[in-house]
Amino acid sequence: MAAKHTASCDLMVFGALGNLARRKLFPALFQLDKAGLLAPENRILAIARRDLDTSELRAELVRELRAQHEPETDEVDDAALDAFVRRVDYCRLDFTETESFNRLNDWHNTEHELIVYMATPPSMYGVIARNLRARDCCTERTRVVVEKPIGHDLESSRVINDELAEVYRENQLFRIDHYLGKETVQNLIALRFANNLFASQWDQNHISHVEITVAESVGIEGRWGYFDQAGQLRDMVQSHLLQLLCLIAMDPPSDLSADSIRDEKVKVLKALKRITPDMMEQYVVRGQYTAGTSEGRPVPGYLQEEGADHRSSTETFVALKVEIDNWRWAGVPFYIRTGKRLPEKYSQIVIHFKPAPHYIFDPDQKHLANNKLIIRLQPDEGMSLRILTKDQGLDKGMRLRQGPLELTFSETFETGRIPDAYERLLWEIFRGNQYLFVRRDEVEHAWRWVDQIIRNWRDSGDAPKRYAAGTWGPVASIAMITRDGRSWYEEA
Amino acid sequence: MAAKHTASCDLMVFGALGNLARRKLFPALFQLDKAGLLAPENRILAIARRDLDTSELRAELVRELRAQHEPETDEVDDAALDAFVRRVDYCRLDFTETESFNRLNDWHNTEHELIVYMATPPSMYGVIARNLRARDCCTERTRVVVEKPIGHDLESSRVINDELAEVYRENQLFRIDHYLGKETVQNLIALRFANNLFASQWDQNHISHVEITVAESVGIEGRWGYFDQAGQLRDMVQSHLLQLLCLIAMDPPSDLSADSIRDEKVKVLKALKRITPDMMEQYVVRGQYTAGTSEGRPVPGYLQEEGADHRSSTETFVALKVEIDNWRWAGVPFYIRTGKRLPEKYSQIVIHFKPAPHYIFDPDQKHLANNKLIIRLQPDEGMSLRILTKDQGLDKGMRLRQGPLELTFSETFETGRIPDAYERLLWEIFRGNQYLFVRRDEVEHAWRWVDQIIRNWRDSGDAPKRYAAGTWGPVASIAMITRDGRSWYEEA
Repeated sequence: MAAKHTASCDLMVFGALGNLARRKLFPALFQLDKAGLLAPENRILAIARRDLDTSELRAELVRELRAQHEPETDEVDDAALDAFVRRVDYCRLDFTETESFNRLNDWHNTEHELIVYMATPPSMYGVIARNLRARDCCTERTRVVVEKPIGHDLESSRVINDELAEVYRENQLFRIDHYLGKETVQNLIALRFANNLFASQWDQNHISHVEITVAESVGIEGRWGYFDQAGQLRDMVQSHLLQLLCLIAMDPPSDLSADSIRDEKVKVLKALKRITPDMMEQYVVRGQYTAGTSEGRPVPGYLQEEGADHRSSTETFVALKVEIDNWRWAGVPFYIRTGKRLPEKYSQIVIHFKPAPHYIFDPDQKHLANNKLIIRLQPDEGMSLRILTKDQGLDKGMRLRQGPLELTFSETFETGRIPDAYERLLWEIFRGNQYLFVRRDEVEHAWRWVDQIIRNWRDSGDAPKRYAAGTWGPVASIAMITRDGRSWYEEA
Repeated sequence: MAAKHTASCDLMVFGALGNLARRKLFPALFQLDKAGLLAPENRILAIARRDLDTSELRAELVRELRAQHEPETDEVDDAALDAFVRRVDYCRLDFTETESFNRLNDWHNTEHELIVYMATPPSMYGVIARNLRARDCCTERTRVVVEKPIGHDLESSRVINDELAEVYRENQLFRIDHYLGKETVQNLIALRFANNLFASQWDQNHISHVEITVAESVGIEGRWGYFDQAGQLRDMVQSHLLQLLCLIAMDPPSDLSADSIRDEKVKVLKALKRITPDMMEQYVVRGQYTAGTSEGRPVPGYLQEEGADHRSSTETFVALKVEIDNWRWAGVPFYIRTGKRLPEKYSQIVIHFKPAPHYIFDPDQKHLANNKLIIRLQPDEGMSLRILTKDQGLDKGMRLRQGPLELTFSETFETGRIPDAYERLLWEIFRGNQYLFVRRDEVEHAWRWVDQIIRNWRDSGDAPKRYAAGTWGPVASIAMITRDGRSWYEEA
């Protein structure tokens, strides 16, 4: 349902001076405010360890928001900026000191709903939750927002989820995967279930295979130590790529309620074919970049980055052939890949439909004869349907050509501005709608599947395959899909 | 197959000074020549009764072609114009004088292929054919082009076709329906059979109904007497609308050969449900325009046009609900309508797909939930697929909106110019490809079905329903589709 604005709500942001809060949360809250979506009485409490007062915090926020505005589509509006920061108070707090949480009670109007946003390392979630409970600063209506990573494997994710579960019920927990806040991802739900043209063809009878690519052009960006503990499989596949895969693969939910949707996603995760040690060579490619070029300049290899341990076998690239053992997807591989230092930054899903059973056009064009639906997440969010039409030109007879039917959101959006994922997610949190957030069992089933692959790597002792920075990953990634008589999609 | 240009060919145009030849054929031939598609040795003989010599004819052609060029996309190229008219000779001929056909033998190089274009009234076809045969000016390789109308009912069409069949075999005969030369019509073949996304849904399981509208804004344009003998059903439905219906409804042909395609079209015509007298009220609306407005100016009614017999009951509008009694289309009505003095000039096919079996979005948007494929023949030839996507804007939640995926040919054509139907048809005649031309049995089955309706009108003695010029026909046309819980498609 469309709604005018949020209910009366107090929002506490723990870790309010951290990267996530400054770069994503406050800008998103400011956009919601500018759009008139925050109720006038909504207040925000920025909580961190640093010694600041509210006026200093507000001045810092103003600087930050000015620096981040999008000059093409978004004017800095001083009055709006001023109105926004006046919603924000600052509270200095040591998250581990139960006593100091009393200060929050003074600020929170208990007649308002309360949202607690933990923009902190996951190791803090439990202690913050317990301290809030100790000071009665949580009720059954409190909503709690946490960010990935929820652990680094199944076991550690259980520890974190258990700590949260001690204090909150599952329907109070909003686990963010910011990919779920992208316009295109939500549109996938509309596309699949509101259009019988697609709904009736969304299965192994009509789809031959699916590709998901999340390519980064950046390298490690000074986070070597942090990243090396995780690797691309944990950092990207366990969360974002499996979430995308679930949205593509799930059976149609009976309604749009959060649990109907998440039940269907969990069914997909449970049906993922476990990748056993003997499957690894055919189903998994693990890569690590060496020195090469990125956007025209030379860049070091992963093992030469600042702070690198040159013995690391952490992957910066992974390509997987994923099979789903259910009625809808039997025999339809999902080829997924993600990596750092690839030639360009983009995220894209390609649905390859099967060709018609019989082909009557020029034999040399037969390779064109399958429809493709291309869903771009970035850049240029949008969808494009590749259909075959008659080639133009009198002398072409019935030659075919592949024509796109394009739907690019930024062009079709009246405002010319696509809301950031965090704006959409915060808006859903204000409205108490969990359908774009990850349920505990989703996290756990995803870890269970990923853990098996990591175990296989560890047991085999194989090193990752090398690829030069600025290339599309190890050649083994191309070989993996070529073995099946296919290729990674490239724009013609 | 793509081809460079035509084989060596002599083209004789009977009726070369008539409207059709001057306004359509010569401009189309000129375009083919400019595009380098005519072989250097191709020659054209303009044949008519008037006393002219070749240089006078060429001067007249130059004037005509200059007057007709399309200023936006097409420059007048004097050298090209000169080169083109030098291909053309003139021959004065009385079509009924067998002797005078000797002159054609002098002109025709028998080593060349021969195309005979009869741009004359159909009553001339037989005599021209016989005289050509008498002078040996036709071989088994001669191709003969004739224009509709092939008769005004089944019986008269048989007379004409028999006369032609006396001299030529069916595979020598190219019956033109210029709608079949439109880019969008040919594209319909590519769309339907090269795209499994559509091919697999092209039946009663997935399509609820189909609309075909061919709307004219003009009235009679000084041809009252001619038109009044025919009426809209004979003039438009028997030819153009039934041809479009066949291309939409036909089963997939096994190959693209002319007879494979035409066999499938004939199957559709044979499966058309015969409209019996008791069905007339529900299935047929017959209209005649009264005074009204057209493009802002007042215009007379059909019975007040110049030369009108005020007792005429000839229809200027007809709407039909057509049912096809076969496995593919049982229960899927084709609503077709065509008329003069309608609010605008356009031709459009709308395929209405069925909605998904279950609907999970906002209840008040349920009426949106079917996909539509809109095929525009004019103006702005192109296709547009209506799909539902998520509405833009943060506060819209999962509201839907109907977004078009557009493919407009004039924009996507590299040249910015869509070839005229006659260019495409002439090119296919030069190449000897009959797939865009109407076979005898198609003409006859179409007449058989149309004749029944005309008989019903005659037997009932009912007068046509009135509609004011500048409106969408009689209200009965709206009532006809409304009874089925549907409406004629209008752009939102």
